[in-house]
Amino acid sequence: MTADLSYDPRTGLASGEVAVSSDEEVDAALAAAAAAAPVVAATAPSERADWLYEIADALDVQSTVDELVALADEETALGEARLRMEIGRTSGQLRYYADVAVEGSYLDATIDRTEPGLARAGVPLGPVAVFGASNFPFAFSVLGTDTASALAAGCPVVVKGHPAHPRLSRRLGELTREALAKTSAPAGFFSLVTGFEAGARLVRSEHTAAVAFTGSQRAGLALWRMANERDVVIPVFAEMGTVNPVVVTPAATARLTELAGGFVASFTLGAGQYCTKPGLLFVPSGHNAAEIVAAELEERAPKAWMLTSRIAQDANGGVGELVDAGGTVAGRADGPGAGWAVSATVLRVPIEKLVSGSRLLEECFGPVVLVAEYEDRDQLHAALAQLQGTLTAAVMSTENPDADPDVAETVSRLAPLAGRVTVNDWPTGVAITWAQHHGGPWPATTAPGTTSVGAGALGRFTRPVAYQHVPDAALPPALREANPWQLPRRIDGAIG
Amino acid sequence: MTADLSYDPRTGLASGEVAVSSDEEVDAALAAAAAAAPVVAATAPSERADWLYEIADALDVQSTVDELVALADEETALGEARLRMEIGRTSGQLRYYADVAVEGSYLDATIDRTEPGLARAGVPLGPVAVFGASNFPFAFSVLGTDTASALAAGCPVVVKGHPAHPRLSRRLGELTREALAKTSAPAGFFSLVTGFEAGARLVRSEHTAAVAFTGSQRAGLALWRMANERDVVIPVFAEMGTVNPVVVTPAATARLTELAGGFVASFTLGAGQYCTKPGLLFVPSGHNAAEIVAAELEERAPKAWMLTSRIAQDANGGVGELVDAGGTVAGRADGPGAGWAVSATVLRVPIEKLVSGSRLLEECFGPVVLVAEYEDRDQLHAALAQLQGTLTAAVMSTENPDADPDVAETVSRLAPLAGRVTVNDWPTGVAITWAQHHGGPWPATTAPGTTSVGAGALGRFTRPVAYQHVPDAALPPALREANPWQLPRRIDGAIG
Repeated sequence: MTADLSYDPRTGLASGEVAVSSDEEVDAALAAAAAAAPVVAATAPSERADWLYEIADALDVQSTVDELVALADEETALGEARLRMEIGRTSGQLRYYADVAVEGSYLDATIDRTEPGLARAGVPLGPVAVFGASNFPFAFSVLGTDTASALAAGCPVVVKGHPAHPRLSRRLGELTREALAKTSAPAGFFSLVTGFEAGARLVRSEHTAAVAFTGSQRAGLALWRMANERDVVIPVFAEMGTVNPVVVTPAATARLTELAGGFVASFTLGAGQYCTKPGLLFVPSGHNAAEIVAAELEERAPKAWMLTSRIAQDANGGVGELVDAGGTVAGRADGPGAGWAVSATVLRVPIEKLVSGSRLLEECFGPVVLVAEYEDRDQLHAALAQLQGTLTAAVMSTENPDADPDVAETVSRLAPLAGRVTVNDWPTGVAITWAQHHGGPWPATTAPGTTSVGAGALGRFTRPVAYQHVPDAALPPALREANPWQLPRRIDGAIG
Repeated sequence: MTADLSYDPRTGLASGEVAVSSDEEVDAALAAAAAAAPVVAATAPSERADWLYEIADALDVQSTVDELVALADEETALGEARLRMEIGRTSGQLRYYADVAVEGSYLDATIDRTEPGLARAGVPLGPVAVFGASNFPFAFSVLGTDTASALAAGCPVVVKGHPAHPRLSRRLGELTREALAKTSAPAGFFSLVTGFEAGARLVRSEHTAAVAFTGSQRAGLALWRMANERDVVIPVFAEMGTVNPVVVTPAATARLTELAGGFVASFTLGAGQYCTKPGLLFVPSGHNAAEIVAAELEERAPKAWMLTSRIAQDANGGVGELVDAGGTVAGRADGPGAGWAVSATVLRVPIEKLVSGSRLLEECFGPVVLVAEYEDRDQLHAALAQLQGTLTAAVMSTENPDADPDVAETVSRLAPLAGRVTVNDWPTGVAITWAQHHGGPWPATTAPGTTSVGAGALGRFTRPVAYQHVPDAALPPALREANPWQLPRRIDGAIG
């Protein structure tokens, strides 16, 4: 294959193409990143922040937004309103991660003035290969959260453009290079390459120090295995789609119709193409929950297209697999007639079918969800114990969850499974803040304990080094007596 | 095999045995650990600290010290003075990690009061399987740094006793259980199992949440592969022996004899059985460095035995492998005549033989080292670029390293390779402090960025969970408004 074809999901017809990178082009991008790495690592976070702000500013120019939204909509069919909002999120997170770098806690600078005179700080890992996601062509793609946090942490990035939006990827790459050309950033600070083979070449390169990925379990685990086969194994920070269970407490059944409406709105967002899509709803039995969800679905489901023909095939095939595994279709809302459409589908599933290893407990990417009824708390808890690790888990309670006796117990059962637990919030919104955590236990991520969203995202791309009796001038700036980067530091055990 | 045999390294004769654990015994230990996990996780760090202090106090009882030193010396031949000191280090680090837990920064508690009301803190992973090292029968074994930091972080531990000191391991297990019986710790907080099969069973168990290991690359990587083959992959924190290069700067050649003496003292400590043993000395050419080291070796080398017959065989065989790879024996000091003795050996190696993948760049465990001469800085830097990741790296300079023009450049070349860089300190001493870092890049550790020594050791055993709009009473204590554990917390971005 010499080109990634660009398709319009609304018609399924090709609308352009982007040449894939040659081996030489990939190697040149990697060599430039490797050459840039020590320069970038030695740069003050505040200077790197200027580089990221320059990119963010370029993204926010009105004519650019208009151009990018049109291009993205042609390739993703996610709609203008959503895409416009997503660009704003993307420029905002570039600035946010730049600010986190300037704040400097991510380096965890620590100095023991007592013998043996140790000082420790994070040092950037080196070039990071970023594999973006299809479902957020801005916020988790070329300039998404992995790229922004790696650059902010002081690591050059080589992005592998996503084949679901190749022309948009190329354009974002051009814009980024143009913006960086106005700054002091070295040439290899950011590059974009294209094509499946280019991705494998990135993961296998001796220059690559880490891989960041957002997407499906199949692709993420393939990259993880590839990295584990290297002579020098490198970390793979993959955050992958999961089932994201939601528990409705007994008390909350009083507002089941309202909750069903919220559920439908959440799981049909972006045609269900969210890694945080709530995919499995537990409801106390005796309330016809699946029928209520089905009625809401019929009323509310937006018409939408899937991002790629493969995703559409997998979503349609997934419904069949869920039926084979014990689900029953309770309702559906047909998609648009043409292009890569699927029907939004709600399935009823007997709770005793939810056993570890079942297809029912794996993600079905797209607007497809399960509803399971539980007789009592013991049955609910037994089912929760069967679930895989998941990005998010939610409890839906009454409007006054403080007074709901089931909230605390349910939260404590869900926390061991998830990276984030919400109460009365659907999981699809992921704020970018200090306290955010987006990675869950295996298999939600290949590097449990790490996150691609929130201030913690930067720490993934540094590694602590301790310096013992090293003269001040030979220390990295983070640890010099004069503290030129004005970092918060722990000195002799006290945070300063 | 139904028992681990206990040997006296001074004679090579068996001196006792310890029955290996049955599958049922291993499963019972794991089930108890799993049952204890949520109880331990919910316990205040200060209460767990009391449990660790109780163990430390038991270790410090004079009659116990005498008994343990005698037993350990019988099984390791490391000598009374060293073993007595090591027990002190071991009880000290139990108290240190307890204090780090009470200080509480390791939980990284973070609260955003602004919307969407997120709060995040580390939660303990669950039961940790600990594989100790042969070379520190106290400080890196049953009650070593991995056990102490995992327990302090709130994780139950199941230790797999080391076959190089089986009777000591059993006795330490008994003492620990007796000490904990005086506390409120649940039964599964700590267990010891024995035998090779027991170790594999621990790594494969669904109850095990993480593995901690100190020892050889061969064994560490085998555990890492085994963990990666699980359905639910778990992290393996393995810190493994490396070459630990040392660079003598041109200016420092003025005190080469003094440095050679320090080198010999460092690499023969514990018969060279340190993971931080300096294994490769770079010296400017023209000073007969290998001969000077050989002369010091002849004068100073203590007679010592290796810990096991396999280590002795591997050390002797290793010298042959290094010769085959291009080394030449420059001098040796014979070991004692009986038992598992080896000759301390220094080899000269042409610097151009030091190429990536060569046996010369892999650890030879025991009192065996290489000396390479460099003509100029370019040749030195080219050789450093061939090295593997390593736990430590050192620069030996004049007595005034601030004035040595080569220190800063050499430190900057070594930092990308190492977890710790020292100037004018031999690497064999590893202080337990806030700023310490003991893990290096792959293959020094399977989880780059983590450390088994220093305050950072606790963080390995927790995983962040974010709570969104969760009512105060349903939050873990670390995040409750009242801050019952009195943790340092970041609130709305400000560290408090």
